[in-house]
Order: sequence, then C-alpha cells, then structure tokens
Amino acid sequence: SDASAAQAAADRNGQLTKPPGALGRLEELAQWYAGWRGDPRPTISAPQVLVFAGNHGVAAQGVSAFPAEVTVQMVANFRAGGAAINQLSDLAGARMDVHALSLETPTADFTQGPAMSEAEACAAFAAGWDAVDPGADLLVTGEMGIANTTSAAAIAAALLGGTGWAGRGTGIDDAGLARKEAAVAAGLAANPGRTGLEVLAALGGREIAAMAGAIAAARARRIPVILDGFICGAAALVLQAERSDVLDHCVAGHLSAEGAHRRMLDAMGKAPLLDLGLRLGEGSGAALAVQVLRGALVCHSGMATFAEAGVAEG
Amino acid sequence: SDASAAQAAADRNGQLTKPPGALGRLEELAQWYAGWRGDPRPTISAPQVLVFAGNHGVAAQGVSAFPAEVTVQMVANFRAGGAAINQLSDLAGARMDVHALSLETPTADFTQGPAMSEAEACAAFAAGWDAVDPGADLLVTGEMGIANTTSAAAIAAALLGGTGWAGRGTGIDDAGLARKEAAVAAGLAANPGRTGLEVLAALGGREIAAMAGAIAAARARRIPVILDGFICGAAALVLQAERSDVLDHCVAGHLSAEGAHRRMLDAMGKAPLLDLGLRLGEGSGAALAVQVLRGALVCHSGMATFAEAGVAEG
Repeated sequence: SDASAAQAAADRNGQLTKPPGALGRLEELAQWYAGWRGDPRPTISAPQVLVFAGNHGVAAQGVSAFPAEVTVQMVANFRAGGAAINQLSDLAGARMDVHALSLETPTADFTQGPAMSEAEACAAFAAGWDAVDPGADLLVTGEMGIANTTSAAAIAAALLGGTGWAGRGTGIDDAGLARKEAAVAAGLAANPGRTGLEVLAALGGREIAAMAGAIAAARARRIPVILDGFICGAAALVLQAERSDVLDHCVAGHLSAEGAHRRMLDAMGKAPLLDLGLRLGEGSGAALAVQVLRGALVCHSGMATFAEAGVAEG
Repeated sequence: SDASAAQAAADRNGQLTKPPGALGRLEELAQWYAGWRGDPRPTISAPQVLVFAGNHGVAAQGVSAFPAEVTVQMVANFRAGGAAINQLSDLAGARMDVHALSLETPTADFTQGPAMSEAEACAAFAAGWDAVDPGADLLVTGEMGIANTTSAAAIAAALLGGTGWAGRGTGIDDAGLARKEAAVAAGLAANPGRTGLEVLAALGGREIAAMAGAIAAARARRIPVILDGFICGAAALVLQAERSDVLDHCVAGHLSAEGAHRRMLDAMGKAPLLDLGLRLGEGSGAALAVQVLRGALVCHSGMATFAEAGVAEG
C-alpha cells in the first residue's frame, strides 16, 4: 500500500462537504482503496470477477444436498449467463471469467489421504494467479464445487483448530451435517501435521487453490480484493497462515449464513460489508459488495470540498 | 400490494438456479418489490431521490455542531452536484430532486410551543406528496436541516415515549448533547397531549413533514420506498402512528450511527439492509441501499430456472 496516496486521500476526506466521519465505514474504505491503488482520488473502472470450479472426491461421503454433476451444469449456466453471479457481475460493471479446473478429475477423497498432490495444488494455484487481469482495479474471487463447504471446513479446522466448522452448505439435512462433521474429522486424521499451504493440497480443492493464487496475484499487482463467503475465506486463511499481513489488500464482502463464517472472519480480523444471509458462493456476496465500495469511492472522489462549495465547516 | 404478483414471484424464486434460500434476504426483497409493483419479474428503471430542506427554530438552543446557514449552503451544494447524495444518486441511476422549503422562515422554536401551525405542516406535507414522480418505481426520501436530529428525537420521544432519543447528530460535543436532551424535554413539555400527525406540526420541521407526505404518496402509487436514517425514520413513525400497516411499502435502507436509530427501527419492525456507520442524512444510506435492492431484482428477474439451464435440483 502507498502511504502517501493514503495520506492524501485522508486529507481530502477531511475537506469534503460532510460532518467529519459522517460517511462512516465508507470513508475508511475509500482511503484503503486509495492506498492500494496509489491514487488519492481513485475510481473503480475495471473490476474483475473470477469464478473457479472444481470437483471434490469427498462428495462421495454424502456431504452435499446436490449431486456432483451440478458443478459442471452450473459452469454451463455461468457461461450461458443464467446464474446469480452473472447478474451481479453485470450490475457491478465487472468482467467475469469462469475457469473450470479439471472437472472430469475430482480431487481424491481427503478422508483417505491428501486431496491433491503438491503438483496438482501448485497447478491450480498458478491457474488462479494467471487468471487475474493485470489491468483490473478490483477483484472478486468466487467458486463452484459440490462438496466444497466440507473442504473449506476442513481447511479452517486444520489451520485454526476447534470443531463445529461444518455447516449446512447448500442446505443439507441433519444426517448429512453429521456426515460432514465426520468427514472433516476423518480428513484431519488422514492428513496430520500439515501447515499453511500444505493444508491446501491435503484438504482443499482446485477452485480453492486457484482463489488463493488469485488473491496472492492481486496483492502483487496492488489490486484490492473483496472476499466472498466461507469457501473464499478458507482460501484466504491459507495465505494468512503463511504471512500475517498478506490479506491487507482484502475486505470481507459479506457475512455468509454458513454458520462458521463469522469465526473465520474474526480470525482474519475483518468486518463484513454486508450481512444479508447469503450462502450461495459463486462470488455473489462479494460482487454485490462491489457497489458498496463503489459508493465509497464516488463520494470520496466526486464530492465537493467545503472551500469549493462555499459551505461553513462548523 | 398485489398478492398474485407476489405469489408468482415466489413461485419463480423457487425455480431459480440456486439452492433454496441461498440468496437470503435478497429473495424476500425481490418478492416484496414484485408485490408492490404488481409485476412478478420486475426491474428498477426509474428510481427517484427526493431531498427536502428546512430550517428549525430550535437551532437557537445550540443543539447542532454546525450553524443554521449551512442548510442553505448545502442546498446550493446539492444543486451544484457536490454533495454525497449527488454521487450516490448517480450511482443508483436515480433522478434527484431538491426542494428547499421556506428556508428563510425557520419553524418556531418548539421548546416554546408548536414548531408549525397546522396549515404550515399541511403545506409541507403536500409539498412532499406532490414531489413524488408518479412514474418512479422506487423512492428514497432524504433531508437537510441544521438541528433536525433534535426535531426527530422529539418526535420519537412524543410517539414512542422513553428518553435518550437525542444523539450526536453531525457531531456535537457533550455540552451540546445535554442541550439537545433539554430541548427535547422542553419540547414535550411545551406541546403536551399531541398524537400522530399533530406531533409533526408540534415538534417536526418542514422537511420532515414533506418526507411523510412523500412516503404516503408513494404508497398510494405503489412505489416502494427505501427509508434513510434517523430523521427519515421520524417522518415514517408519524405515519405509522396513524395506521400500523402504512409502512409496508418501505424497507429500512441502513442503520444509522445516530444512537437511537435502532430503537426507531425496532419500533417499526424493520431490519436495515446496510450497517456501515453512516450518519449523514441527505438520503445517503438509502440511496446506497438502492444497489442492494437492485441486486436482489437483477438476480430474481435475470437468473435462469433449473429447467432453462438443465441443472439438477438436488
């Protein structure tokens, strides 16, 4: 982040025609974005939404309310423009790219051993890294992958400890939730002693690794990121486990209805922009939150100063 | 509201390519809007933002961090396009109209007696009613008026009882807050026995009466309303005191940082769409929330159904 641009943005914020602090969180958002873009009066003109899809061997444990073939069906829906993320990307004025990652080759069932080899995980991470448009000025990473809340729960359990990370996902019943909890526990037992990025290979999926790669690439390119929900959060946690400040270019787009998401956000020290009970994934909550960030920036960059408007400062 | 349109929207919602309920509050918002518009697959194409300005005799009690001349200065800023609400209206694709209501004639100081005569209050209410574009498909009502959080606090106290309705407003210090609290108490003492719309004349202001008129007109024309913060909430409360279901066409756009706003929303039984610490007024929080409602509608009206997309329903 560029301290001089952030300071210039803070100075500008203090001169805008409003009582100090009256735009609340919008003010800090604008200054955060200005710092990362190195521009004290920035706009969002080229947001990118990346949707990664992957299939999961752990689906065989009966952990999802939907059959595994829905992953590829939804990829077709993304490409045809029919999914929620298509509509929300359009509303955000965002370019949306869909990357289906070896859907015909699900990861291995992590209750039996590592979901991916190191090479497979690195390839997926690299696919995410390469998917980021260097000309983007904002990034949303989303995903689709039947059974991936189970993978995300296992990653969170491995990195943060504790239990209760499994949730209802797309709407599984009590028996299915019990199977998810058992799968998470079995996954940890079958993959002991993993830390940081090793957890990604052991318990993750290709779409989660790709999100981690994209989030890391965005930081390298000073592209701010809006995080989506529970599964995106698991990808972010893996990066944070490697380096504590590595998510400074990210804000939490929303609080998911997936039960353990708040614990995940607390572990990242991030407060969500929206809390509307979404639990769809795809990047949907983050794409909606683009408009909140854009609202912050149109105010910051478009408002008159007290001097320009001839308004008394109180 | 049109029950058959709402039912058709609910039926459509159940067929969209997402797990049931996965879009959370966006789903109920879309169905609510569909009912009020009588269209099971609606869009927002003509939103209107109305900003009313008024001056308050109670400003003489030293209840604001800003001098009273800021009201007319900010009206000029609205007209020149320099305020936050201008930027947020543009982002929402909304028409924005500014109505300055007899700024040269402040209301009377309500600590001494009624702020307005019945005729003055009715004229302001009518100005708000007439300001609503019959062709609008969504309405935001905002305001500007130095000292109007004091007026709004007095209205809430008169209608809902209790104390602690005064807050920091634009950022007043402890001594000023004590003066606000005293002014509210004096206002109630000087205007005893008022109910419903009588409270508007006794303790309100022209911009608050105009917001009440606009909200009522919108209902008559089946135009859904997004409520702004504490002052807009006071206008809505006056209507609710007359008839309990009269705010069914309204959603709460955001939770203001003005301390007592949550109590006000609780009294209306409304949960805010956003909670970002805004306390600016002008309609700013509600205008930002237009994008949340629009997100709900682009998903509802634009997504493919399971049958259209060939996706398994689980």
